[in-house]
Amino acid sequence: MTLPFIAVDWGTTSFRAYRVSSDGSVDGERTSADGILAVADGNFEQALERHLQGWDTALPVFAAGMITSRQGWVEVPYVECPAGVRDMAAAVVSRVLASGRTVYFSTGLHMAGGSLGHDVMRSEETQVFGSLHAGATQYVTPGTHSKWIDVQDGRIVRFSTYVTGESFALYRHHSILGRLMAGDADDEQAFARGVDMAFGDAAGLLSSLFSVRSLGLYGELGPDALSSYLSGLLIGTEVAHAIAQRKRDGLWLVLASPAIAGRYLRALHMAGLKAEMGDPLAMVAGQRLIAQAAGII
Amino acid sequence: MTLPFIAVDWGTTSFRAYRVSSDGSVDGERTSADGILAVADGNFEQALERHLQGWDTALPVFAAGMITSRQGWVEVPYVECPAGVRDMAAAVVSRVLASGRTVYFSTGLHMAGGSLGHDVMRSEETQVFGSLHAGATQYVTPGTHSKWIDVQDGRIVRFSTYVTGESFALYRHHSILGRLMAGDADDEQAFARGVDMAFGDAAGLLSSLFSVRSLGLYGELGPDALSSYLSGLLIGTEVAHAIAQRKRDGLWLVLASPAIAGRYLRALHMAGLKAEMGDPLAMVAGQRLIAQAAGII
Repeated sequence: MTLPFIAVDWGTTSFRAYRVSSDGSVDGERTSADGILAVADGNFEQALERHLQGWDTALPVFAAGMITSRQGWVEVPYVECPAGVRDMAAAVVSRVLASGRTVYFSTGLHMAGGSLGHDVMRSEETQVFGSLHAGATQYVTPGTHSKWIDVQDGRIVRFSTYVTGESFALYRHHSILGRLMAGDADDEQAFARGVDMAFGDAAGLLSSLFSVRSLGLYGELGPDALSSYLSGLLIGTEVAHAIAQRKRDGLWLVLASPAIAGRYLRALHMAGLKAEMGDPLAMVAGQRLIAQAAGII
Repeated sequence: MTLPFIAVDWGTTSFRAYRVSSDGSVDGERTSADGILAVADGNFEQALERHLQGWDTALPVFAAGMITSRQGWVEVPYVECPAGVRDMAAAVVSRVLASGRTVYFSTGLHMAGGSLGHDVMRSEETQVFGSLHAGATQYVTPGTHSKWIDVQDGRIVRFSTYVTGESFALYRHHSILGRLMAGDADDEQAFARGVDMAFGDAAGLLSSLFSVRSLGLYGELGPDALSSYLSGLLIGTEVAHAIAQRKRDGLWLVLASPAIAGRYLRALHMAGLKAEMGDPLAMVAGQRLIAQAAGII
């Protein structure tokens, strides 16, 4: 049993707050599209108070995500990888607000080297730390920028980012590929066809993307199948590359909302891997562990 | 010596007309951003007459590009690949306008099979046919949708499309990767670094794209180098995939405006291939050959 607190995930385009009781269960939730980009003039304190209105100001607030980036409220330097819960806890900084609330800011992780030279994340690490009990060695956090995260002995030792979700949104809504599409209903067969295409030629994405148009023009895929096919091409390309660089055995845990996580699971299963869906609230459990290690709750 | 005529390339986002004298030289040019998407209510005849105002209505007009697609003026079915100048000539259809002008519409090419199942192009084939005297066996027409075109005995036998130019525009102007960029000046070193990254890991595009952000965040590439680096990543990925599927020997001819063609030449030379820049007006020469074969001029 620890003290109750408020867990906040404040990203670029969304705000989520959970009131967490002393046994770790969530007894209140506030969500909003007020990501850090939507907060005018850096007025983060006012925005936070508005979102948390009515929640006890004595509860410590634990915040992670882009809110601790250069574009956010309080920039907290990245912790270097490899890192565990204690390393994250040691980097927490706090600020007392006019209302009397104390906000604790938790930073993200930086990895030097790797194929990109540098890689970074903010908040995905809390999902991983909150899922360690599942016993996986590989974690995937699909999203605008997906992260593939490798854990050893409870520490994040390596990770890599894929701009898959953002790419899907670009091609879906801003490219000529989206012109033939009607809706975004999940078409499992079209999705699998896209994954197959990607698995067969992982280096050919810029070319296979054109098949979204040519297969549509020739009626091989209907307008309501093209969005799922595009999704399969992109997710398949990501999965093919990410698993080629990792050991295939062990459990792969996918941490995202069920709709997105389900697609990644299908692609991982098509690749013959053992993969499961993780707890969508793992972020809250991870923040609780870091807050405990920091002596905040 | 053949009759003079007017060569028109009418694409999705641009209109170009050239008045061609009997010896094949260009003695007049009209260009506009009135691509087929900019023409209201399908009023293509009015738009064409406006662009050609003052040019002799007795001159035959030869038109190619998206103007012959389903979204254009007169839809002309694709010619099946392999195809040469005579096949294109046999598919030309004509229409007489109120002014007395005759417009001849030249269609594009369709290739069944191949890695995509279906592939199509409209107007790039005229550039290739107009460049056959260069003696290349491989042609590249970079652009919104780049085409890699294989020629044997004067006929186009195979081609494949890459959505590279459109992808660059999307990531440059609509993604988080563009946020750190300042301008689009050509930075040869940053471009080469992007090409190198792509050549080293051609299947990792969705991941290496994130390095546009992470290398920018860590100051390894300045704001005015990031656009060239992104361009190198995308063009390098395209080149790596396209040349892996073709014979490396022989001459590769790049057909585009000098700025774009120059970048493709650099990437092809980095790959150790013999590549040259083609004639930017090859399209006019190609249309002339097709118009001659059709008995129009």
